Amino acid sequence: MIVPAGDSLPRYVCESCGAIHYRNPKIVAGCLPVWGEKVLLCRRAIEPRYGLWTLPAGFMENDETTQEAALRETREEANACVSGIQIFALYNLPHINQVYIMFRGELEGGQASAGAETLEVALFEEARIPWSELAFPVIAETLELFFADRRYHCFQVHTGDISRNAESGYKIVRYRPV
Amino acid sequence: MIVPAGDSLPRYVCESCGAIHYRNPKIVAGCLPVWGEKVLLCRRAIEPRYGLWTLPAGFMENDETTQEAALRETREEANACVSGIQIFALYNLPHINQVYIMFRGELEGGQASAGAETLEVALFEEARIPWSELAFPVIAETLELFFADRRYHCFQVHTGDISRNAESGYKIVRYRPV
Repeated sequence: MIVPAGDSLPRYVCESCGAIHYRNPKIVAGCLPVWGEKVLLCRRAIEPRYGLWTLPAGFMENDETTQEAALRETREEANACVSGIQIFALYNLPHINQVYIMFRGELEGGQASAGAETLEVALFEEARIPWSELAFPVIAETLELFFADRRYHCFQVHTGDISRNAESGYKIVRYRPV
Repeated sequence: MIVPAGDSLPRYVCESCGAIHYRNPKIVAGCLPVWGEKVLLCRRAIEPRYGLWTLPAGFMENDETTQEAALRETREEANACVSGIQIFALYNLPHINQVYIMFRGELEGGQASAGAETLEVALFEEARIPWSELAFPVIAETLELFFADRRYHCFQVHTGDISRNAESGYKIVRYRPV
């Protein structure tokens, strides 16, 4: 790695053509599909966290918007459409260089089924959420915030950080919501 | 480019080591620093848009949070600190694979000065904003939304898309704010 001219950080630079390969955080975009009192979860058919429950979400690709990425992932993982999406949570995961952007919206027709990366889908009311079998802390965080906002009939936009180190495990910081 | 096993899109794959180089949208994080009735702008000392006015913003790096990136860029470009930041706008720029995430906050002490990439900094009240000399449409959009919210004494979180094509120029879509 070398520091290119005019830059301040070391970068991967191709020794033959000089191309600079910047490595920046990736956006993971997803949906929290709501149907009446219930929310849709997917049980993962892929590693990591095979067999655990998650919200439909995945890496945003070039040539799409954050919202399009969230809807695409929901189609791919749960064969489901979500309408009226609104930004709900933006969480930084700096230890793995990811930024989660989650949108809430209505699951159209309450319809969903398992996509290729999903073992099964199911609608859960709050009391039935499988909290101990959720795939990632950011998923638990998103669901907790959603149910808390719903109790107050006021949906906010939430931001926070989820970091992890070997000794102390996960640490979650919530900023003041907007 | 080839489609790796289990993937659905063509990727750049190194022919000697097999490493897959994913190319995903990059986050540009920035601040809208507010001091009383005024906001801080920076006049660019670099291309593109040399000499035009902008809000402090730049590419988020690995190992930092979105908020840290916004504050770092504000320090680097304007030697300024901003406190109490809150997410204000998330805009997709799919034609250049960027997602802008802008935070509003208070410019500490009203203090700022030109950093290495800045010709000069200045505080502008709404009536003095140099609308015709702003560097990028996303900057004009952020400022417009800010002043509109301020008139109603209610700051929301705004999302939208700014795209561009050769024939029709820029197209801006605003989603319903939260």
